[in-house]
Amino acid sequence: MTYCVGILVREGLVMIADTRTNAGLDNIATFRKLHLFEKPGDRVIAIATAGNLAVSQSVLNLLNEGIKNPETGEIETIYSIPSMFKVAQFIGRAIREVYRIHGKSMEQQAASFDVTMLLGGQVKGGRLRLFMIYSAGNFIEATSDTPYLQIGEHKYGKPILDRAVTSETSLQEALKLGLVSMDSTIRSNLGVGMPVDVVTIRRDAIEIDVSHRIDRNDEYFLDLRERWSAALRAAHQAIPAPPYGKD
Amino acid sequence: MTYCVGILVREGLVMIADTRTNAGLDNIATFRKLHLFEKPGDRVIAIATAGNLAVSQSVLNLLNEGIKNPETGEIETIYSIPSMFKVAQFIGRAIREVYRIHGKSMEQQAASFDVTMLLGGQVKGGRLRLFMIYSAGNFIEATSDTPYLQIGEHKYGKPILDRAVTSETSLQEALKLGLVSMDSTIRSNLGVGMPVDVVTIRRDAIEIDVSHRIDRNDEYFLDLRERWSAALRAAHQAIPAPPYGKD
Repeated sequence: MTYCVGILVREGLVMIADTRTNAGLDNIATFRKLHLFEKPGDRVIAIATAGNLAVSQSVLNLLNEGIKNPETGEIETIYSIPSMFKVAQFIGRAIREVYRIHGKSMEQQAASFDVTMLLGGQVKGGRLRLFMIYSAGNFIEATSDTPYLQIGEHKYGKPILDRAVTSETSLQEALKLGLVSMDSTIRSNLGVGMPVDVVTIRRDAIEIDVSHRIDRNDEYFLDLRERWSAALRAAHQAIPAPPYGKD
Repeated sequence: MTYCVGILVREGLVMIADTRTNAGLDNIATFRKLHLFEKPGDRVIAIATAGNLAVSQSVLNLLNEGIKNPETGEIETIYSIPSMFKVAQFIGRAIREVYRIHGKSMEQQAASFDVTMLLGGQVKGGRLRLFMIYSAGNFIEATSDTPYLQIGEHKYGKPILDRAVTSETSLQEALKLGLVSMDSTIRSNLGVGMPVDVVTIRRDAIEIDVSHRIDRNDEYFLDLRERWSAALRAAHQAIPAPPYGKD
């Protein structure tokens, strides 16, 4: 399993991904799921992946190596596409190309062709945007009404986002809330695990702001965990006693 | 969908259930899912149900009307069974009896025979206990290592329980935490909705302590929601800024 979250606020974008992959409980490994494509000043793109690892790795390879544009005959890569919307379409094409090659055979082996991606970033001349791309290659975009998108094991970490994140949340608070959401998921689901990769991108900077891998000994993350748990304890203890009796 | 949680602490037992049922998003109704069977001084039993409503209602009818014991030939009801363990077995028999009558036909109509139940309570002479019963009629029991059990949409409300509930938690705190867990689930999932039924049972009292329906205007629940959201906001704002840069 996997948990990745992207949060798009006025100041910028946060993307966070765990690194645990598993084929059954007895076959666990660590793979990076958060991938960066950066040409400072021209584009800064982050992609987080969930689902079948063979599929997502093939898609990422196609993004780098390129796909022939059927109209112009030219090879396009993620570094040449001129807008974020077109990058989302391009990733959709790459997913369908992988499906064309492996999809039928995977189904014959009862392996599901299952991939979802978060695509965030900015290409020069366009806006900072955040998309979620499905295994059919179609996609949705985060808006100010719903400024975050999740893939993988999304339920554990959703309540804190639902309660606290708006598009006016600062980039720093969004990063903290994303880390709390990730911590809640890691605690409750063995399929999601450390280390955790974090990226932030400031709006219109067109370069990476933060790019960091949080491992088990990361002091800030340990402190955030501790403070959060202590604050929750204090919070429920401060709520008055329920006044309920027998109706 | 449904969300029900039972928390067994040293002082007693909390059980909480929502009341929303749905057959598709366009067919929503309110049904009580938390059922009480009380003979003060002799037994106090609470059952929360999730899954197919036709199945769970049939099971509850059998518990009240009775099933013939194949060994003694006598009709047993939930009011005559001599221990909580035997009540759990009895409910398992009732589930299998409903499966015997409706299971095959339901499968023919592509309706899944899907039912899970939380069973909590105490019978005179025995301990206060909490069980989760599966659709096969088998069951597990909460222990001091894992003092809570959930059925239905359990993921949203699990992190707060994982962080805060132990078997030493007071009954009052357990009730508050159960309500926070329910509130988180209601906010994040349309399939879970108000009103919410709440029961608490004090250990060895062998009678209902609290039995209350929380509706949309319940002042205490509105205040708990408000305080919890405010405390979470304060909690993440009090966490220091992330020190991360580019690795």
